[in-house]
Amino acid sequence: MSNKPQGKPKKTAISVTREANFPKWYQEVIKEADMAENSGVRGCMVIKPWGYGIWEGLQARLDQRIKETGHENCYFPLFIPLELIEKEAAHVEGFAKEMAVVTHHRLVAKDGKLIPAGELESPLVIRPTSETMIGESFAKWIRSYRDLPVMINQWANVVRWEMRPRMFLRTSEFLWQEGHTAHATEAEARAETQTMLEEYRALSEDWLAIPVIAGEKSASERFPGAVETHTIEAMMQDGKALQSGTSHYLGQNFAKAANIKFQDKDGGESFVETTSWGVSTRLIGAMIMTHGDDDGLRVPPTVAPRQIVILPIARDEEAAAKVLPAAAELAAKLNANRAFGNAVRAHVDKRDINAGEKRWGWIKKGAPIIVELGPRDLEGGTVMVTQRTDIYGKAPQAMDDFVTNIEATLDGIQAQLFLEASTYRDARIRTDITDINAFKDYFAKDDVNTSGFVRAYWDESIDSEASLKDMAVTIRCLPYDQPTEPGVCVLTGNPATKVAIFAKAY
Amino acid sequence: MSNKPQGKPKKTAISVTREANFPKWYQEVIKEADMAENSGVRGCMVIKPWGYGIWEGLQARLDQRIKETGHENCYFPLFIPLELIEKEAAHVEGFAKEMAVVTHHRLVAKDGKLIPAGELESPLVIRPTSETMIGESFAKWIRSYRDLPVMINQWANVVRWEMRPRMFLRTSEFLWQEGHTAHATEAEARAETQTMLEEYRALSEDWLAIPVIAGEKSASERFPGAVETHTIEAMMQDGKALQSGTSHYLGQNFAKAANIKFQDKDGGESFVETTSWGVSTRLIGAMIMTHGDDDGLRVPPTVAPRQIVILPIARDEEAAAKVLPAAAELAAKLNANRAFGNAVRAHVDKRDINAGEKRWGWIKKGAPIIVELGPRDLEGGTVMVTQRTDIYGKAPQAMDDFVTNIEATLDGIQAQLFLEASTYRDARIRTDITDINAFKDYFAKDDVNTSGFVRAYWDESIDSEASLKDMAVTIRCLPYDQPTEPGVCVLTGNPATKVAIFAKAY
Repeated sequence: MSNKPQGKPKKTAISVTREANFPKWYQEVIKEADMAENSGVRGCMVIKPWGYGIWEGLQARLDQRIKETGHENCYFPLFIPLELIEKEAAHVEGFAKEMAVVTHHRLVAKDGKLIPAGELESPLVIRPTSETMIGESFAKWIRSYRDLPVMINQWANVVRWEMRPRMFLRTSEFLWQEGHTAHATEAEARAETQTMLEEYRALSEDWLAIPVIAGEKSASERFPGAVETHTIEAMMQDGKALQSGTSHYLGQNFAKAANIKFQDKDGGESFVETTSWGVSTRLIGAMIMTHGDDDGLRVPPTVAPRQIVILPIARDEEAAAKVLPAAAELAAKLNANRAFGNAVRAHVDKRDINAGEKRWGWIKKGAPIIVELGPRDLEGGTVMVTQRTDIYGKAPQAMDDFVTNIEATLDGIQAQLFLEASTYRDARIRTDITDINAFKDYFAKDDVNTSGFVRAYWDESIDSEASLKDMAVTIRCLPYDQPTEPGVCVLTGNPATKVAIFAKAY
Repeated sequence: MSNKPQGKPKKTAISVTREANFPKWYQEVIKEADMAENSGVRGCMVIKPWGYGIWEGLQARLDQRIKETGHENCYFPLFIPLELIEKEAAHVEGFAKEMAVVTHHRLVAKDGKLIPAGELESPLVIRPTSETMIGESFAKWIRSYRDLPVMINQWANVVRWEMRPRMFLRTSEFLWQEGHTAHATEAEARAETQTMLEEYRALSEDWLAIPVIAGEKSASERFPGAVETHTIEAMMQDGKALQSGTSHYLGQNFAKAANIKFQDKDGGESFVETTSWGVSTRLIGAMIMTHGDDDGLRVPPTVAPRQIVILPIARDEEAAAKVLPAAAELAAKLNANRAFGNAVRAHVDKRDINAGEKRWGWIKKGAPIIVELGPRDLEGGTVMVTQRTDIYGKAPQAMDDFVTNIEATLDGIQAQLFLEASTYRDARIRTDITDINAFKDYFAKDDVNTSGFVRAYWDESIDSEASLKDMAVTIRCLPYDQPTEPGVCVLTGNPATKVAIFAKAY
């Protein structure tokens, strides 16, 4: 694991360690950090305030960047008519197996039970993604080159029916943003695809402290209907890959399906070139599995709903009368500072529960900084500070220094999370596996302490990619960072010009 | 109409005037302001950037206030199992006729057509509101008085199947926020209901410049399952009422249905008291019909996605080389100011289209201020300023003064919109109608130039309220502002202690 605690041996706060049972550890962290829970509807989760607050922190940053790169937000219907979704053949084939279908528009009571009534003339699909719906609008909006580019985004819920749901990673309903653009030229559409993938890289690395590998998907891993799919791939602490964001160059496929044409400067008529790109609540799953440790979640300060939690320590009313106002004052002083471009978020936890339980509660939730403040601290002008990145390094600090340095301290925690994750990840990318036997051995082992990615030459053939299926391995991407020399395909021994990232994946 | 333009006679920018055909004028404004359009799905609209940007301006303010009043955001599933929605009898009866039902979870191709497959064991309803779903979670979360209050909110889409849809006012899918809280005592729950209604009043009046009457709904107009429903009611420019936000005191009705109990300090067990409250994209409809005029939309500066639109005027390349950088510089100077607690939003419209068309486009969209900037303005250090509240009062101003005064200017436009709407509304509240004949005559007239609200005594009887149906009149609310003297019911002549607001309504 990337971040085993140093210091005295101890029982961990999460009952199952990452090493003992990674999937169970993941579920436990979500529960103990009070981020989300399963609902009564199979595959659908309830996102609780701590989980949703993290999503809001991510949204605020990405929404700002989406606007700064020239896009505007819109909202398109939840429902898609069957006739529309049928129009792009590869697209409908890709999603047909997981679409929720609305067939009725009311309920009536019969024999004391409610049953569906008011059958629709034609069923409606709940959007799994909105290319087809938005394409219809683009066809209405776009007449001339003067109308281009059209660059829009929506924050929405989508539904893809999941047979094996896992909270944040695979849920039947999930939250995301989907950007959709239309351009006059292929060059412009390709540039847009790259711009947004770079935004996703920055969101992941600079905001969520999750290192990623950016690259292009192989043909079999493309978005249904895309010409090219570009991706950022992160490594979880069990060595598996998690696709964390995708940006698609759609060429004229959807433009032809929806008949989106424009008149160019010379009076000729062409189909537009489109792109689409999205990230989802899945990124929260990536955050948990990248930064969490055996004591629970660790939230990057950028997105922590509460960056500093102040715990007033008071044994009696008299102490409380001094400590509570001092805690409020400290929070106000901290909140007058800025970090990561926003006001600092400090919070006083005044709940009437045991102090140790309270402290461990915030450790499990992954609040970046916990401050204990008691009568003796007030006398000495100090605070007792625990950083979530070093929970056994609890130490007193002069209160004034603590306030003055808060931005630097939060920056430091953010940097440390990224460094730990990068160090772990880089150590788990094998570049020394060059033949099929070593490759098979490596992935057969499936050891939480050693498994990771293989970076190796690949001949780009469909057959060799298909042969990976038996090993439960996939090509995550052809990374942008490519060697200049040709080599030999790790799967076939054939000549190859490109390297790929191979991994087991979520 | 409230705001007939002064000055020279003219053709209006909206082809149908409010006076000639108010419903058609409404549709035209939405189209000409490019706010939204109908989609291929009956009853579902596409909210375009200008409309969605207004929603974002409203959301930002309300979300901040929801948090400042102690609530946290969450997210609950789109789908509700039938068994759950059945639990509260009045609730399900209220919504059964308009619920979209999901019955299948995939599509298969058959004879070249896609048909629903994978029938669900039990159908799922798409949330029309989430009391039942959230009640399930509350029952899990709440054990003791220490867990109370629970105060949450979600921003979500909901579906209520509409047979007669109208954009923003009645759409099958709409966007809203729904707050849900649980409390230990009735007093606390009632106070919460009032706190949030007051937030809605402030949102409507102080943010959207829409004057409202706050009060309690009569029994027949209550939210299905509520003990009391409180409302804010606005008057549109055709004299009709629009319910603009509601806050419900639910008592223990939903707590009993979902079995939400807690142990109090003395060890006893009680049901919690709950509330719920919501506003929706309907408020945008209210904004259009309150502030719009025969030249299009007028957006309050608080929520205008672009508060100041700068139009560079340049006949040739040479002029453009001077004017474009000056326009960008002016926008930057304006944006360095703050208004209504946020950075000012100025925008340079560089589109290559006719200058007059451009100016009228922004008038129809209701941008609060339009600035024209040409070479001669640059020489004189002036700008040509049009305020949307006075489009024939276009006048030159010293550029420096314009920048310095921008906050006051925006404040002034905001105040003027509220004043115009209040003056119009107050003049259309009849307090002199005291018997049933005068009442019937007034509402039978249905004249866009005179119709409005009647404020009169009502005996609070179910029968008298039912008698309004034939007149297509409803009781909008029993306003909080009540007389101290008793009176005589306008409908029956019986003694009455309270006054009600009567109106035709959307």
